[in-house]
Amino acid sequence: MTTVMEKLSVTHSSFVIERSYPTTPERVFAAFADPAKKRRWFAEGEGFGVREFEMDFRVGGSEHSRFHMKDGTPLANDTSYHDIEPNRRIVFAYTMSVGGRRISTSLSTIELLPTEKGTDFVYTEQAAFFEGSDGPKIREAGWSGLFEQLAKELAR
Amino acid sequence: MTTVMEKLSVTHSSFVIERSYPTTPERVFAAFADPAKKRRWFAEGEGFGVREFEMDFRVGGSEHSRFHMKDGTPLANDTSYHDIEPNRRIVFAYTMSVGGRRISTSLSTIELLPTEKGTDFVYTEQAAFFEGSDGPKIREAGWSGLFEQLAKELAR
Repeated sequence: MTTVMEKLSVTHSSFVIERSYPTTPERVFAAFADPAKKRRWFAEGEGFGVREFEMDFRVGGSEHSRFHMKDGTPLANDTSYHDIEPNRRIVFAYTMSVGGRRISTSLSTIELLPTEKGTDFVYTEQAAFFEGSDGPKIREAGWSGLFEQLAKELAR
Repeated sequence: MTTVMEKLSVTHSSFVIERSYPTTPERVFAAFADPAKKRRWFAEGEGFGVREFEMDFRVGGSEHSRFHMKDGTPLANDTSYHDIEPNRRIVFAYTMSVGGRRISTSLSTIELLPTEKGTDFVYTEQAAFFEGSDGPKIREAGWSGLFEQLAKELAR
């Protein structure tokens, strides 16, 4: 006999990624708040073509990006910004779609802490993965790659 | 020496609430999708005065409700809908504010499963609690109270 929990269509999980960047919290924050900077490290990653990137970085604002993978499969990211504390914290929810089908919604918290050497950066994702989703390991690897792109952006 | 994690301003946690309702998934879903029904069980709870309740129940849509507690303290709930599968699943993110200050953002997943007797209902909340927040125990108790209101709505 299967239990209620075994019949559910959603898998919940969470992960944390920590980084230290040798620059100020103000500059790290700007890489998220400034559309030109964010587009560069976040949307124009290797292996993806950017079709659309629109962001409205304020509490209650949205961000929409549309990509395609090398094989042509369309990807979409739809984000809503829920909490912004300048130079300190950004909280947003985002839904990923592949080929027009929603595969996950996540709540992401970014926290920035000033240190002697720069900024400690902590990314926490609490995710709900739907049918046919990539799951937490691939998602975490994806963000780790993005935060390498962010390091390059901060070194510009 | 304090660690990075100890210095953070956000506490993450999650909880699950399960209920069984003696009615169809269609009727439970309608209690979330129909503004008149949702306002009745969700917004007009005991001890709160509703000042505003606006909902746009579609993927990408928002919901805004404004209340005041018995002592006059204003409360606000700002929701964004991320995934809706009719009669089966609703995924939304919501931010709570007390006295104009944001205290949390949560990702909520509602799953509905048809049973012989009606509907198994599973609510999963993955929350980020900010400074001065109520925290997971009070939040879980709050939703448990709301789901009793929902049971009354479904029995109408």
